[in-house]
Amino acid sequence: MRLSRVLAIVGVVIFFIGASMLLATAVSVYFADGSVWRLLLSAVLSMAIGTGLFLGNSKRLGTQDLSLKDGFGIVGFSWFGASLIGALPFVMTGTIPNFSYAFFESASGLTTTGSTILANIENLPEGVLFWRSFLHWLGGMGIIVLSVAILPFLGLGGMQLYKAESPGPTKDKLRPRIQQTAKLLWGVYILVSAICFVLLMIAGLNWFDAACHTFGTVATGGFSNYNSSVGHFSSPSVHYIIIFFMFLCGISFSLHYRALVGKPLAYLKQAELRFYVTIIALATLAIYLSRLNESIPTEQNFRESLFQVVSIMTTTGFGTSDFELWTPFAKMILLGLMVVGGCAGSTGGGLKVVRVLLLFKYLKILLNQQLHPNGVFVVKLDGSRVKREVIQNILGLFLVFIMLHMTASAFLGFLGVDILTAVTATLTCLGNVGPGLGDIGPTENFLAIPTPGILVLSVCMIMGRLEIFSVLILFHPQTWRR
Amino acid sequence: MRLSRVLAIVGVVIFFIGASMLLATAVSVYFADGSVWRLLLSAVLSMAIGTGLFLGNSKRLGTQDLSLKDGFGIVGFSWFGASLIGALPFVMTGTIPNFSYAFFESASGLTTTGSTILANIENLPEGVLFWRSFLHWLGGMGIIVLSVAILPFLGLGGMQLYKAESPGPTKDKLRPRIQQTAKLLWGVYILVSAICFVLLMIAGLNWFDAACHTFGTVATGGFSNYNSSVGHFSSPSVHYIIIFFMFLCGISFSLHYRALVGKPLAYLKQAELRFYVTIIALATLAIYLSRLNESIPTEQNFRESLFQVVSIMTTTGFGTSDFELWTPFAKMILLGLMVVGGCAGSTGGGLKVVRVLLLFKYLKILLNQQLHPNGVFVVKLDGSRVKREVIQNILGLFLVFIMLHMTASAFLGFLGVDILTAVTATLTCLGNVGPGLGDIGPTENFLAIPTPGILVLSVCMIMGRLEIFSVLILFHPQTWRR
Repeated sequence: MRLSRVLAIVGVVIFFIGASMLLATAVSVYFADGSVWRLLLSAVLSMAIGTGLFLGNSKRLGTQDLSLKDGFGIVGFSWFGASLIGALPFVMTGTIPNFSYAFFESASGLTTTGSTILANIENLPEGVLFWRSFLHWLGGMGIIVLSVAILPFLGLGGMQLYKAESPGPTKDKLRPRIQQTAKLLWGVYILVSAICFVLLMIAGLNWFDAACHTFGTVATGGFSNYNSSVGHFSSPSVHYIIIFFMFLCGISFSLHYRALVGKPLAYLKQAELRFYVTIIALATLAIYLSRLNESIPTEQNFRESLFQVVSIMTTTGFGTSDFELWTPFAKMILLGLMVVGGCAGSTGGGLKVVRVLLLFKYLKILLNQQLHPNGVFVVKLDGSRVKREVIQNILGLFLVFIMLHMTASAFLGFLGVDILTAVTATLTCLGNVGPGLGDIGPTENFLAIPTPGILVLSVCMIMGRLEIFSVLILFHPQTWRR
Repeated sequence: MRLSRVLAIVGVVIFFIGASMLLATAVSVYFADGSVWRLLLSAVLSMAIGTGLFLGNSKRLGTQDLSLKDGFGIVGFSWFGASLIGALPFVMTGTIPNFSYAFFESASGLTTTGSTILANIENLPEGVLFWRSFLHWLGGMGIIVLSVAILPFLGLGGMQLYKAESPGPTKDKLRPRIQQTAKLLWGVYILVSAICFVLLMIAGLNWFDAACHTFGTVATGGFSNYNSSVGHFSSPSVHYIIIFFMFLCGISFSLHYRALVGKPLAYLKQAELRFYVTIIALATLAIYLSRLNESIPTEQNFRESLFQVVSIMTTTGFGTSDFELWTPFAKMILLGLMVVGGCAGSTGGGLKVVRVLLLFKYLKILLNQQLHPNGVFVVKLDGSRVKREVIQNILGLFLVFIMLHMTASAFLGFLGVDILTAVTATLTCLGNVGPGLGDIGPTENFLAIPTPGILVLSVCMIMGRLEIFSVLILFHPQTWRR
């Protein structure tokens, strides 16, 4: 890896993160919330750091193509760097004076996790609240281009998945070039955001609440500007709008693009989407039934169950009721959904629906193979054959996911965190979900976890967001050789 | 599968289980515990059922070779059948009147799990206590022949592992024929049991306690005839003897055989054994350190930590102290050890040390492959190359293990069991360990779990014992076609 080239590009990313702080500053001006100058200072400082990093390293940028190792460096360091810089507004405004905590909040925003360290969200300046939610939106843009355009370029599972996802061998590679692909998908992302924003305003939200919740929804992030999350709004129509857009943004954005350019049937042809809908339907039904003896009105039970299932499955993490009080069965279903996550190419986290689907198909083949040791079985998806290496990569990711989960949980246990909290905190962070159980339930925050644990969880969020391998690889000594 | 042939052989297994109840009857006569006739009746009834099953199906036995499907049927139904029949003494003597509970206790014995449904063990008749522990010993014999001789014959991971385990390609296939292999290994098993028994008596135990704890130790089972398990004995030498034999029986019995016939260096050459020792050493150290501020004497802390680590890692499940009261970190390490389990070819359960070792090696290769997409990497063990299919089978088993664990946990949650209890109950049963956390901690029993949960956990114990696949396969419609 040529560190100077990597740092030059990280500088550009940091500059843009800094520039977008100006938007938060504008919001601060509008509300006269008293944090204008501090936000402005954060923006200027960030842009200066970004510029410095770029200029200090740009002469080495050269014209040479980026290597595979450079690619891993750029992805990993951009997310770490952006998370560090994104923490600045929290520290500068004094809303989160502890830098580790601010880093956690910023990483939670950018990775669209939505776990918070803040005990009382509502007394924050509007500029900071806006920044917090806007980090989600930026992160969502980042992850779309990352999963569909950059990670495949690095040969990291994504492209193979993407191939597997599409019906034919070549016809829908969208556009071959990263820049064009990114622009197209961002267009879809912005369009979906705009519609969500307008609908939320029609449903009665003021523009600020509508904006913050749009960011949290379309990025499947989960930060709200209210302590009681979406439960703050009593109108069922707000809940249903957010359910719909969480559901939508848990689906591949390239699929939305295909549908928008005149192929709406693409939705029906994708096995991943069918599996996604099936899981949501079954999980909602199961939770709805498990809550029947709680004597809540039918519509409310249905809405709360559906909301929580979609919110957790898409790894958003919004809440309309405290699921910590639900039955153990309901809670376990939600934990299972955290592992599954959204569809590949969406803003959702977790293992991704298509991977879980392929794991199930692989399981069936394993059984067949025991009965017919010499038989040759292939996994098929959407009519085409899935390569053996793709399955092996998925099994590998699954393995790393579980191992990382166990290690990080044990570390939290070492810090004295109780088992349920430790296990669900790691799960919710690795899956970029938001809330967990125990001390970090949907009505609580991560303050109960000691600082070293907060830092490990921040790393977990970033690793989860970057498909784990692209971060693990940075710890490999070979990556650092030229 | 030709059911009649399968049932004939299951009949033979049941006959022998019944015959061994005569031993329990003899113990009952010795202690005049009042259950002589009921135990005798159980024995006669079991032998009659076995004889009936055999005779009713033996004419179809023929001389034809057994097919692969027959093999799966024999393995699965033998363990289910033996567990059902093994429950008879509990029901007939009225010590566990509920048949589901008695089935659980019997399956727990035969699978060498050691989870109990009994609240007060000490007031049971000696004949029943003996039977309970003797089930462990029978199960241990069963699993040794199963893992080294029968499962490989069915092409189920075992043989490939066994190959991988040995230094050369052919030189130590022990003896080629199942019967001979089984006899050799049973010889080692009986020898180890005899030494353990004698040492426990020298350490001051009466013959009955020594026998029961020998059965529980060498089979890595974990049933004790005292409510406080091995903690009942205050003498440290008893603890150390049991630690040593649990450790010994967590190692491959074919390795012991090789050492006994004059190749003691075989121990040093095996990577699995080195990994096993390393994990035990590190886990003991970590738990020892985590308990330093509890102000217990150094030797006691060391002994209790080592005892619990060896007991859980070998999936025995004996206890000398209530680890439920230890730090979350210590508890999480113990949970991790449950997943790892003993070495392949031992009486221990879990995933097996060699599989975990190979998963780690595979992980390293996955990382290398990201950096060098066109490189060819192979996993090596004890100097020889491990086939790709072996790794894929292990990944498959790992996947099935986790999925089964999640499904069974969710089912327990559905029955209203709290999350920690549900998750650890499933883990401890699938891994054939014994105790869990929450309501089923080391000082408690499984009575808190509703009957349907008890039945599911019984199935989990049997599935865990039979490497999962050989049971799953019985649910496959193709298995039932001729």
